[in-house]
Amino acid sequence: MPEQDKLNGLPPVAANGLLDRRLFMKSVAMGGLSVVAAPVLADSVGKGQPPWLLVPGRGVQGYGMPSSHEQVARWIRPPGHWRGRTIPGAAFTPHQGLTGTYTPSGLHFEVNHHGIPGIDPDRHTLVIHGMVDRPLKFTVEALDFYPTVTHSHFLECSGNSQLLWADEPAEIMLDRSHGLLSASEWTGVSLASLLDEAGVQTGGKWIIAEGADSGSLSRSIPMEKAMGDSFVALYQNGERLRPGQGYPMRLLNPGFEGNTSVKWLRSLRVTNRPAMTKFETSKYTDLMPDGKALQFSLKMDVKSVITRPSNALILPKKNVVYEVTGLAWSGSGRIRKVEVSADGGSTWAEAALQGPVLPIMLTRFRIPWRWDGPPAILQSRATDEIGHVQPTRTQLIQARGNQGGYHYHAIHSWAVAADGSIAHVYA
Amino acid sequence: MPEQDKLNGLPPVAANGLLDRRLFMKSVAMGGLSVVAAPVLADSVGKGQPPWLLVPGRGVQGYGMPSSHEQVARWIRPPGHWRGRTIPGAAFTPHQGLTGTYTPSGLHFEVNHHGIPGIDPDRHTLVIHGMVDRPLKFTVEALDFYPTVTHSHFLECSGNSQLLWADEPAEIMLDRSHGLLSASEWTGVSLASLLDEAGVQTGGKWIIAEGADSGSLSRSIPMEKAMGDSFVALYQNGERLRPGQGYPMRLLNPGFEGNTSVKWLRSLRVTNRPAMTKFETSKYTDLMPDGKALQFSLKMDVKSVITRPSNALILPKKNVVYEVTGLAWSGSGRIRKVEVSADGGSTWAEAALQGPVLPIMLTRFRIPWRWDGPPAILQSRATDEIGHVQPTRTQLIQARGNQGGYHYHAIHSWAVAADGSIAHVYA
Repeated sequence: MPEQDKLNGLPPVAANGLLDRRLFMKSVAMGGLSVVAAPVLADSVGKGQPPWLLVPGRGVQGYGMPSSHEQVARWIRPPGHWRGRTIPGAAFTPHQGLTGTYTPSGLHFEVNHHGIPGIDPDRHTLVIHGMVDRPLKFTVEALDFYPTVTHSHFLECSGNSQLLWADEPAEIMLDRSHGLLSASEWTGVSLASLLDEAGVQTGGKWIIAEGADSGSLSRSIPMEKAMGDSFVALYQNGERLRPGQGYPMRLLNPGFEGNTSVKWLRSLRVTNRPAMTKFETSKYTDLMPDGKALQFSLKMDVKSVITRPSNALILPKKNVVYEVTGLAWSGSGRIRKVEVSADGGSTWAEAALQGPVLPIMLTRFRIPWRWDGPPAILQSRATDEIGHVQPTRTQLIQARGNQGGYHYHAIHSWAVAADGSIAHVYA
Repeated sequence: MPEQDKLNGLPPVAANGLLDRRLFMKSVAMGGLSVVAAPVLADSVGKGQPPWLLVPGRGVQGYGMPSSHEQVARWIRPPGHWRGRTIPGAAFTPHQGLTGTYTPSGLHFEVNHHGIPGIDPDRHTLVIHGMVDRPLKFTVEALDFYPTVTHSHFLECSGNSQLLWADEPAEIMLDRSHGLLSASEWTGVSLASLLDEAGVQTGGKWIIAEGADSGSLSRSIPMEKAMGDSFVALYQNGERLRPGQGYPMRLLNPGFEGNTSVKWLRSLRVTNRPAMTKFETSKYTDLMPDGKALQFSLKMDVKSVITRPSNALILPKKNVVYEVTGLAWSGSGRIRKVEVSADGGSTWAEAALQGPVLPIMLTRFRIPWRWDGPPAILQSRATDEIGHVQPTRTQLIQARGNQGGYHYHAIHSWAVAADGSIAHVYA
């Protein structure tokens, strides 16, 4: 069947070429529709053998690495200044080169306010003290013998997408706009079980978590969270935490801004009030239009972004079907739905969600899109299981102003030009 | 409450100290029970500051690596001989040092019959030919524009646990006995959609898949599988496949023996019968007691193993509760239950399964076990969702003899001695 006949038989589900997500489930219907860099009629196999077919391959390594042909790495931002504030060195996950829902540990984002400490695990301890009946000190080996929990969770820095607060849209790649976001399978020890062992006293309402980095990064965690789903993570994606992720142990507060999941965790102090540390006053607070600041805006909002196509790609061909795919997440639980628009938000169609859809975890969405050549603006809008809907940029700025610098989670827009090039725009 | 009082209040669920799996869900009950390397009463924080608290830490790398204090790597087996056959070089996943359910890509097992080819992705193609209407050739770039699927699956070499066919139990670590098993989140293109595009002709009943390694490893796949859940994987755990995993593309046949998921995939030929290649005749066939061999025993059996404690550990203390944890999997679907025995199989108790329990994926199980000091034999027994039960070693050998060398999936036994040391035994 000619390509165009098949396409004409497919009902559009929103303007500008968005097609029913179920199209991807019917493999027969897709045959030939995605012919972008066209498969050619093959006349034979094995003409002009490449050199790797002619000689035995190399041996195996104890710890494997990516192909030398792959240049996927984190974008490194050195320490500097932004809007008069100091900003720490950071490494951004290159989502434009990744897919799926988990982030390789070597590509997990990092924001290190005081660099990465070189911790000897045999000399590291975690102390639980303050308003407890039995102050306790745990070695790594001690924690290794506690019952463990395993959960897949995203972490997002509340400074993720910080540059998108600017009045004009910066033409930055996806890593710089959304790369302070990653996801892993974490394994560790329930914080509640450790606190119970120490015996939290009446009136103990907060936990002050402190890291073993040279600046002793500290954050205050409400007791309800600490006694809820928080845990002390020892493993990431099956192996010990990476140094930049807090080796040998970090706090993990699912759904809270990344900075609260204190890395290189060395102290948990139970108190009757928050500590108002540097990292929850001069940083990681949201300045509102009235000049006041939000305190403890800890839970990450519902958010999504299209990862492909993005401005890392030029669409090579018209009148074909592209897969539009991206990530959605919420600090409040599961993603319920993701809608995609190809006309800048006038009409929307529901994308397919890749299961299993897990709570407080990245969820990949996909929808087929037929691009016939005219300019288009691609957007995604996520809704979480308790009904939070990702706002437009206008709505977000109306609610919060644009001086906060944190918790940007508005709908992201990619403008596709007639030549197939793609730009980041405000729309 | 004194430790022993708490323990005495807990009902055993099987002999030799197995406790109710729900104990791990009640954090209060666990406080103090797991005190193996005891937390000490803390008198102060910060006495004798370690050096990393005194100086700024190091900067971040583009692609991160494990701590230099961690020695976790794959055990490398050079090419050699076993029972008169040649055996290929291999790398074994060190499950004794890992947890969770996903394997870091750098620690995924490898069996490379002809080494790892150094493929330039710009020169690699996949051809679909044979009994098809339109023979097609795909570049990597072409496949990048097809709709994708993402699935988490284990891969297991059918030669995993091969040494356990021996008449006497070898005192080998968990990596050597069960390390040809790993799990990843894979993303790629549905094989059915590619076959549909090529147009499989009437009578096309098998696919011959061939790799671009120097020996052109080839396997025959039944058409029902190829048109079912098989896919051409391009990504592993979010990033491009690692070279040892088939970069830039491999076949992925969920639940089938690992060797059929042909790496460095270059050719898919549709035929009316299997090719009877070297790798499905002289290798990867199961010799039965009557001298005949099973043909195409493709689907991996239900299996499990306790990963901690294992013979990599010495239990440091008596009269405390240990977490017994391990992995279970089946090529037929989800794991329904895992039972654990501490008395060599006389009595069994059901372990907790870490959710989400996904089909054809590693599932982690856990159960609390109070060890009071006498010798014990720890075992795990998995049952999958269609009712397959992992056999005892005696049952397995009665059914298949012990000359096959593949598909060993019997219950594994760890003998705990009075001094806390652990040995691999047949029981």
